[in-house]
Amino acid sequence: MPSPVEFADAHRARFESELSDLLRIPSISTLPEHRDDTRRAAHWLAENLRSMDLPVELIETAGYPLVYAEWLGAPGRPTLLGYGHYDVQPVDPVDLWTSPPFQPAVRGGRLFARGAADDKGQILTLIAAIRAYLQTSGRLPINVKLLIEGEEESGGAGIEAYVRDHADRLRADACLVLDSGMAAPGVPAITLGLRGIVGGEIEVSGAARDLHSGIYGGVAPNPFQALAEILTALKDKNGRILIPGFYDRVAPPLAEEKAGWERLPFDEAAFLRNEIGAPALIGEPGYGALERMWARPTLEIHGMPGGFTGAGSKTVIPARAAAKVSMRVVADQRPDEIAGAFTTHVLAVAPKSVRAEVKMGHGAPPVVISSNAPPIAAAKRALTEAFGREAVFVRMGGSVPIVSEFAGRLGLPVVVTGWSLPDANAHSPDESLDLEHFHKGIRALMRFFEEM
Amino acid sequence: MPSPVEFADAHRARFESELSDLLRIPSISTLPEHRDDTRRAAHWLAENLRSMDLPVELIETAGYPLVYAEWLGAPGRPTLLGYGHYDVQPVDPVDLWTSPPFQPAVRGGRLFARGAADDKGQILTLIAAIRAYLQTSGRLPINVKLLIEGEEESGGAGIEAYVRDHADRLRADACLVLDSGMAAPGVPAITLGLRGIVGGEIEVSGAARDLHSGIYGGVAPNPFQALAEILTALKDKNGRILIPGFYDRVAPPLAEEKAGWERLPFDEAAFLRNEIGAPALIGEPGYGALERMWARPTLEIHGMPGGFTGAGSKTVIPARAAAKVSMRVVADQRPDEIAGAFTTHVLAVAPKSVRAEVKMGHGAPPVVISSNAPPIAAAKRALTEAFGREAVFVRMGGSVPIVSEFAGRLGLPVVVTGWSLPDANAHSPDESLDLEHFHKGIRALMRFFEEM
Repeated sequence: MPSPVEFADAHRARFESELSDLLRIPSISTLPEHRDDTRRAAHWLAENLRSMDLPVELIETAGYPLVYAEWLGAPGRPTLLGYGHYDVQPVDPVDLWTSPPFQPAVRGGRLFARGAADDKGQILTLIAAIRAYLQTSGRLPINVKLLIEGEEESGGAGIEAYVRDHADRLRADACLVLDSGMAAPGVPAITLGLRGIVGGEIEVSGAARDLHSGIYGGVAPNPFQALAEILTALKDKNGRILIPGFYDRVAPPLAEEKAGWERLPFDEAAFLRNEIGAPALIGEPGYGALERMWARPTLEIHGMPGGFTGAGSKTVIPARAAAKVSMRVVADQRPDEIAGAFTTHVLAVAPKSVRAEVKMGHGAPPVVISSNAPPIAAAKRALTEAFGREAVFVRMGGSVPIVSEFAGRLGLPVVVTGWSLPDANAHSPDESLDLEHFHKGIRALMRFFEEM
Repeated sequence: MPSPVEFADAHRARFESELSDLLRIPSISTLPEHRDDTRRAAHWLAENLRSMDLPVELIETAGYPLVYAEWLGAPGRPTLLGYGHYDVQPVDPVDLWTSPPFQPAVRGGRLFARGAADDKGQILTLIAAIRAYLQTSGRLPINVKLLIEGEEESGGAGIEAYVRDHADRLRADACLVLDSGMAAPGVPAITLGLRGIVGGEIEVSGAARDLHSGIYGGVAPNPFQALAEILTALKDKNGRILIPGFYDRVAPPLAEEKAGWERLPFDEAAFLRNEIGAPALIGEPGYGALERMWARPTLEIHGMPGGFTGAGSKTVIPARAAAKVSMRVVADQRPDEIAGAFTTHVLAVAPKSVRAEVKMGHGAPPVVISSNAPPIAAAKRALTEAFGREAVFVRMGGSVPIVSEFAGRLGLPVVVTGWSLPDANAHSPDESLDLEHFHKGIRALMRFFEEM
């Protein structure tokens, strides 16, 4: 009987082939025309898990089903709750893909397909690691619960409600969120922090109706001009936010975490050129680019609806205009408090010639995970050993609500990691996964089971 | 044989009935589904003019025909070129009309219908005045050329090209543009100035593609933020434009013209309440509301395309965004020069983290007409006598390109006047014309013929 590691080595082709099978299913959860495909991906996963004789449940939600499986044959040992998602992003613009997005193709050691990195190629490493044990020794070194959702790219409402209502069933000693990435090729990473978010809309109304700018220009307030004044009173030219009290609760990263970031293979000039493509980076003086993305709060404008936006010209002073904005918040900022300070400041700086109204949505809190938690230390050892290079601690600027749910609602230490590269194009054409990283990821997770 | 004045008095019902007939034709020139209706209005006018035995020509253009007629039976006397238009604005939102827009209805002495004030009810006063002479004495006190277009509400390209190419045929001693209005009920007015216009679009691009604001917020430039900074560097909170050299050529109105405006029955509080409906008026300190609308340049933002403007939220840092802007210019500002100063300033103040581009359209120069020109004096006497109240000199904040053509290209003194009231709703539901003003307008034009 081979060892689990020997099994994994011997079945590389099978794991790649399974990944390609799953990638051929266009499970785009945001597009209604792919409803059947998205459900098909859930059924594919359920069948794959059942082939290991695991009990599998398709848990229906208001949207797409959760795939739940568990192996609890190691009483007294820790339990790991593993998370991933089987839905994928849309593929537009499809003509920018080198090969069709749902026909997996290998080029230069990378597998190209929509979902290769985000998240099918990651969740399958966890299933492969489990298979390597169950199909050899017949048992795992720890207990495992798997919860795989199909709405990560379209809101994730189903899993949030389920986690809220089934904390008991999901009880575990640690979570593994396989939806993050590596620091660079060959450099495994664990994500210790995520920014939170709170956003909404500033609506400004001036005149009671759209006015002719010839007849009324010079006396009628222009809501876009008012918005420009409000927006420049929210953030200065250096990117510093001017809302009173905004930074009061910002907790700087620990010196050792920051020192770790400075050692990362991050080339700011290459980053600007390859990932941004603008004339220059912006941001608060005195903070490095990684710190600005990971550990500093921001405020962004996403769109400014209102007025005339068609081709040609229409010289209207619009009655109303709006700005869609959001703020990324960091530990220990509180989204509700920030929403309140934002609203108060907008109303205070809005010109008196217009009516301003602020509508804020529901926020998500920031997450910071201590590197001292035992599962983090175990994951670091496992990743370091499997990749042959010391795993590094990073953060992510984005918000992953499910991590907040696991960390906040279930109170669990969460290991956020994965095998996606910074240039994996997770939401763009030519999404890819490095196949060597895929296999090392399987080995890293097997090692992680042992280390736990 | 009755006198022309007696004829006009005796035919009030006929003139009103003819106006209603013309108003029943929905000649909306911007809407292709009203193409036949718009042409029908031209034919209606041609028939009405032919019924006085005038030679009439329908001059085809790339769009709708010009209706041209002339009576040149007074050699040695001055020639008047009269202008109006037979097309009308769309009627949306049609459910806000008290009576259907193309079923003329009289309420409280006013005739309600689309086009009643703008411009059918005005051009028909000129035709009625001519008829009162030709059907009594058989001759007019002056020579008259009539040029009536059908594209005033949709660009006016046809008449501009025709005027450019047929200056000889249109030779006259004065123009009468019947497409303006009264200062207040019972108070006739002559418009001595129009603002010009120059506008375009500021396009700002940051990153090479739309970016996720979570991942890249804090380092990627946001084109909307850059636009807010640019726009607040173009105009300050008091409405003063900050473009270097912008005000250099602004010629203030003559003291006596300004003094006349101060005597106008203009109630700023009522204007704010009834015409604007905003919390307050805006504008440069030290200038009255009328002066700000009529004789001060402005800069307005009409729309800001780009990013995400749908319902809900999408936390994107857009790659591109734009601002559609225009400036109203006054004598002696030059649109081309202003466009250049605008472009230079935008590029100078644009943040260096983005690429800014300015695309300016073709401008229209401002027009100022001297109150000393003999046709203006004649018109003032005629209006004062017909309405029994001294005609006042006003300006209009809007741009009427045909006035620039007549004044600039043909070099003619232009009498810009009409019977539309400030609350005529020319481009809104419930457009109306005061019928007493309609008949006094006919008498005023008859008197104007004599005074010339």
